Amino acid sequence: MTAAPLTGRQRIALAVEYDGSGFLGWQRLSHGPTVEGVLEAAVARVANEAVDIQGCGRTDAGVHAINQIVHFDTTAVRPMRGWILGCNSNLPSSVVVTWAGIVPPEFHARFWARRRRYRYIILNRAVRPALGAGYLTWERRPLDAGRMHEAAQALIGEHDFSAFRAAACQARHARRRMHEVGVRREGDRVVVEVEANAFLHHMVRNIVGALLPIGRGDRDPGWVAELLAGRTRIREVVTAPPDGLTFLGPRYPRGLGLPGWLECDDPL
Amino acid sequence: MTAAPLTGRQRIALAVEYDGSGFLGWQRLSHGPTVEGVLEAAVARVANEAVDIQGCGRTDAGVHAINQIVHFDTTAVRPMRGWILGCNSNLPSSVVVTWAGIVPPEFHARFWARRRRYRYIILNRAVRPALGAGYLTWERRPLDAGRMHEAAQALIGEHDFSAFRAAACQARHARRRMHEVGVRREGDRVVVEVEANAFLHHMVRNIVGALLPIGRGDRDPGWVAELLAGRTRIREVVTAPPDGLTFLGPRYPRGLGLPGWLECDDPL
Repeated sequence: MTAAPLTGRQRIALAVEYDGSGFLGWQRLSHGPTVEGVLEAAVARVANEAVDIQGCGRTDAGVHAINQIVHFDTTAVRPMRGWILGCNSNLPSSVVVTWAGIVPPEFHARFWARRRRYRYIILNRAVRPALGAGYLTWERRPLDAGRMHEAAQALIGEHDFSAFRAAACQARHARRRMHEVGVRREGDRVVVEVEANAFLHHMVRNIVGALLPIGRGDRDPGWVAELLAGRTRIREVVTAPPDGLTFLGPRYPRGLGLPGWLECDDPL
Repeated sequence: MTAAPLTGRQRIALAVEYDGSGFLGWQRLSHGPTVEGVLEAAVARVANEAVDIQGCGRTDAGVHAINQIVHFDTTAVRPMRGWILGCNSNLPSSVVVTWAGIVPPEFHARFWARRRRYRYIILNRAVRPALGAGYLTWERRPLDAGRMHEAAQALIGEHDFSAFRAAACQARHARRRMHEVGVRREGDRVVVEVEANAFLHHMVRNIVGALLPIGRGDRDPGWVAELLAGRTRIREVVTAPPDGLTFLGPRYPRGLGLPGWLECDDPL
């Protein structure tokens, strides 16, 4: 942590965990509950002033997060423990602040993030889930996780990911650098983990949506490379449901005074 | 599977997974929803006759199960797939039948079970859980899982477990054979797994309740052996909450025509 000024305006970062089931997504909306909305209200109660929260990334309705990173500016002076406990007593049980720290005034939770990681869990068995149903997507037909993993490696590197982009995506361009895509089987679950510099709207869910027919044997593993090269979203790629998706969090460059678990070796 | 008679009375076994959060426990009650109650109603719809379901073991309100085994007798003749799909379309989303099989007329889900296994998950960090909150018990003070594991080994073997028995326990005697107690850390979680021939009412939750102060350093590891030898439930042992507890299921002797994942080497 950088030394804390005792007065004046400070930039504070928070790590936030949430169960997205009961929310319309991350971004503040006027017509229903969002994670950003309840978090801003809780922080404002603790700060005793209005705050504007910037999240590292938006998540869709029903998508969870273990480590959403946000920042806000405030003139309120509180110990970090005070931010954490104060926010948590003002948040619903499905949202919790797990960490708070003072960051440099130039820090930006979204623009300074160099990597983002997501996990997608598919329950692959004949019957629907009962236990943990809100954290799983169900696929009844047997999946070949090795075949899905092989196919997914075509995504590694810097590409135009327009083929995996939602129509509503607001990003200026579709070039993203994919660092890692792993598909592995754990008992009756197939777990997909992806890490990229950033993601387009629905990008993880569309990647999973392309890998599912490959895992079922309906498509060749080369289909992912074909889709990528096509640079167009086609309707054969079905967006996978939000339930199985969890945002594991971002990574920032070293030397910004962030804790080690938020750092990576990429330069600013 | 034993050969299926096509007419007459058959004994059918089911494997059932459930999220206990919304139920008053396993056992049928007149004043609220129970897992046995909704399951009996679903089976009766498929059988088109009243059925009496015998479960392998009761679980408390809020306790989950991955593999509750039940049996019932019926004159209805259905393919096993019919029992599974029929039950599941008549069950709430928090309960699912994962397997069905014809068993010998003498099979008894409860009396023939030779081993039962439970898992208890403790989230051990400074702040409460948000993601998966219904499947975790929260302990904010740091736990020494190795110390808990060491202490718990005193429970192995055949003992009078009266010290870990609820006042309301209806068992005729308190002698149980503990086969395995393991406590391990997985990141910010401490996972307790226990396997015994059978369990008394609240036995797992009282064992965890005794291990927690040992893990926090408030009690010596020898306290478990002292409690066991005392053969009396004392109020210093606080029953741990139900949320973290999941019944992983029973094991039966080999040679009964049950699938291998339900078998163990113990004799009938």
